[in-house]
Order: sequence, then C-alpha cells, then structure tokens
Amino acid sequence: MYTDRKISSAVIKRLPRYYRYLGDLLDHDITRISSKELSEKMSITASQIRQDLNNFGGFGQQGYGYNVEYLYNEIKKILSLDRTYHMIVVGGGNIGQALVNYTGFEKRGFVITAIFDVNPRLIGMTIRGVEVYDVDKMEEYVKNNKVDVGILTLPRTAAREVAQNLADWGVPGIWNFSHVDLHLPPTTKVENVHLTDSLMTLLYKINEQPKPTEKENK
Amino acid sequence: MYTDRKISSAVIKRLPRYYRYLGDLLDHDITRISSKELSEKMSITASQIRQDLNNFGGFGQQGYGYNVEYLYNEIKKILSLDRTYHMIVVGGGNIGQALVNYTGFEKRGFVITAIFDVNPRLIGMTIRGVEVYDVDKMEEYVKNNKVDVGILTLPRTAAREVAQNLADWGVPGIWNFSHVDLHLPPTTKVENVHLTDSLMTLLYKINEQPKPTEKENK
Repeated sequence: MYTDRKISSAVIKRLPRYYRYLGDLLDHDITRISSKELSEKMSITASQIRQDLNNFGGFGQQGYGYNVEYLYNEIKKILSLDRTYHMIVVGGGNIGQALVNYTGFEKRGFVITAIFDVNPRLIGMTIRGVEVYDVDKMEEYVKNNKVDVGILTLPRTAAREVAQNLADWGVPGIWNFSHVDLHLPPTTKVENVHLTDSLMTLLYKINEQPKPTEKENK
Repeated sequence: MYTDRKISSAVIKRLPRYYRYLGDLLDHDITRISSKELSEKMSITASQIRQDLNNFGGFGQQGYGYNVEYLYNEIKKILSLDRTYHMIVVGGGNIGQALVNYTGFEKRGFVITAIFDVNPRLIGMTIRGVEVYDVDKMEEYVKNNKVDVGILTLPRTAAREVAQNLADWGVPGIWNFSHVDLHLPPTTKVENVHLTDSLMTLLYKINEQPKPTEKENK
C-alpha cells in the first residue's frame, strides 16, 4: 500500500480505467507503449497521462515509453488489488444473482462468499456454489468471517437498516445498488450504483438538443 | 421539454436525486416541504437546494416551502420523463436478464421491447414476456421500431461494433454496461455503468486510511 503518497481523488478515479487499458494491452502481449499511443487509445491527452502516471514515479522513458506490465502492477498495488477481497451479497434478486454469476470478479480476487435474503424459497439454494442464507444469520456470519464488502441489492426500504448493521459490525465497504442514499460513519466507505439515476441522466442527454434526424415521438 | 432554458450539467446530475426524493415524499403523502427539511433528508445545504431549484422557476414560498407534487412534475418535464422510452437489450446474459426482470423501469415509462443475443440456446426464449432475437435481426428491428436506448450488456469484445451499428442506425442513446469505452458521434449519447471500475474505487477507499479496528488481512 502506498500510504506515504498522497494522490488526488481525481487521479484515483482515473486509475481503474488505466488499469483496464493496461490489462488489455497485456492480454494482447503488448509490453510497452508510448504516452502518445496510450493517449489515442484512451482519448486522454498525452500530457494528462504523463502527469497522472508521474504521480507514482515517472516510469516513462524517452524513446521507450512505458513498461506496460510494470505500470499495471504498480497501479494494482496503489489500488490495493494485490490481495483477495471477500464480499457478501444482501438481496438474492435479479441484480444480486447477476453479480454472483459474473465470473470476472473472481479473476480479479473479488470473491463472493455468501448471499443473504429473507425469501424462504431462496434460502438454502446455492447460486454458482454460493449459498443463500437467511438474513437472520448475517450478524453471526459477518462476525465469524472476514467480510470486506457488503453488496446491497435489496429493496430500498430495508437497505438503510442493513447498511447500518454492516457498518456497526465493522464491514469497511458497502457497494450500494439499492436506490437510496446511505449515511454511514466514516469507517465504512460507500460506493453507489444508482442504475435508475444513470438511465435518467442518459435520457436527459438524449433530449438535450433536438436532433434534425429525430424520429417522431409517438 | 425545456429547450429555452440552459441548466448547468452539475445541476442536471443532481436532478434524478431530487426526483427520487420528491417521489418518496409523494409516496408518503407529503405534499409540501421546506428547503431546510429537504436539506436534512438529502444532506445538501438548504442554500444549494434553493439555488438548484431556482434554476427552473422559484417555486419555494416563504413560510410554505415547496409544493412537492408541482416540483416533482416540473423535474419530470425537465428530465423529459413525461413520455415513454423504448429500449432494447443487447446481450441476454446475467446483467441483461436482471435488467429485463426489473419491473421498476416500466413504472417510470422505460420499456424494454426486445433482447438480442448470439446464443442459440437463448434465441426464441422470452424473459418476462420480452423475446430474445438473433443479433442478426437487430438492424431490421431497429429500422422498423422506435428504439430510444440500446442497453449494452454484452462481452466487451463485441460491444464497440454493436454500439457503432446502433449509432449508424440512428439510436440516440447507449446505456453501456460493457467494460469498454465507446467513441461515438455526438448524435448518440452514452452513459456508462462500469461496475468493476466502481468496485475498484470502493476497494481503494477502504484501503485509503488504515483503520485502528482493521482485521488482519489473511
């Protein structure tokens, strides 16, 4: 972990994207890249890239460019992705199941270890090998197992209480898909995925400028 | 549509959240609210709320507060949510199916009319009444039906080509769940939901400050 370096949150927000692009390059056996090439791929200016990447050591070499694997691994360390994370899903509905079924997380070391729900029809089932437990068992589970992230995919009415419980039990991260804002102590971090808000933003953008080719709205 | 008013994109970003809170108030039969009360609920300053809402007419009245239903309907109009949107899902996997199964969209007038996939096992099936078609049929479908939004929930390798096709066929909006950035002409708007980026940001936040209560990482 890079506790001795202070990186601005704007740069941090961009790091997962760098990480994704560098991972792609590695998958294609590309071992080095210039800031200019990376700039074209990512639609960021080359100077922005140099500035961003200089934040954690200036790895770019004149006439050589960046060592892709080295940079990938450095960002991995900065994002603390060089370890395994244990996650639980609270709410075994559509989105919850979709996340459990997504194999991409495991490849990155993000492992879903348990699902909790109130629905008796779901409890006892396994989804891709992950068991669905009664939500009443959650406190015991969290206290006896390492849980880094609680993924909230439950109806909004119950989400606040569950989030507060998880925070009280010491879970450091909440990935919140429930359509509600959470107010938790600073020891528990929250990242929201508010799908309907995202869709509404898109719909607003579509309507922002009337386009000449727009079809008639029926 | 409020074509005669220019509202800053920062305000626009906040509107879905106002819309959500006001909808909640209506569900609880609350017909008026002061900026102070709304401020406490939303964790935004009252002056920010007044400033935001003044952008589209100063509906707040001294000693009365805001008329919740009126404000709700005004924001609905500004966001162009007072009409039906037709959407197609490209990629009938986990996330695609979860979105089709989510009934909350329809209630808001966002209707998924078709799903496209390459998998012969899925083609011909219906998911909650929505048929899965061969992706080869997509061009014909888009040209013969009103499609406002293409929802991309397909593997990243195919996402760019599909997005470009949809843009070429005149689809004005892409809601992109595929883990890839799209570069499309300005007539097609894109909103990304990059789930893995969001999760990585959360994991970074968790690690940002070592917490005294942190459990041993095994």
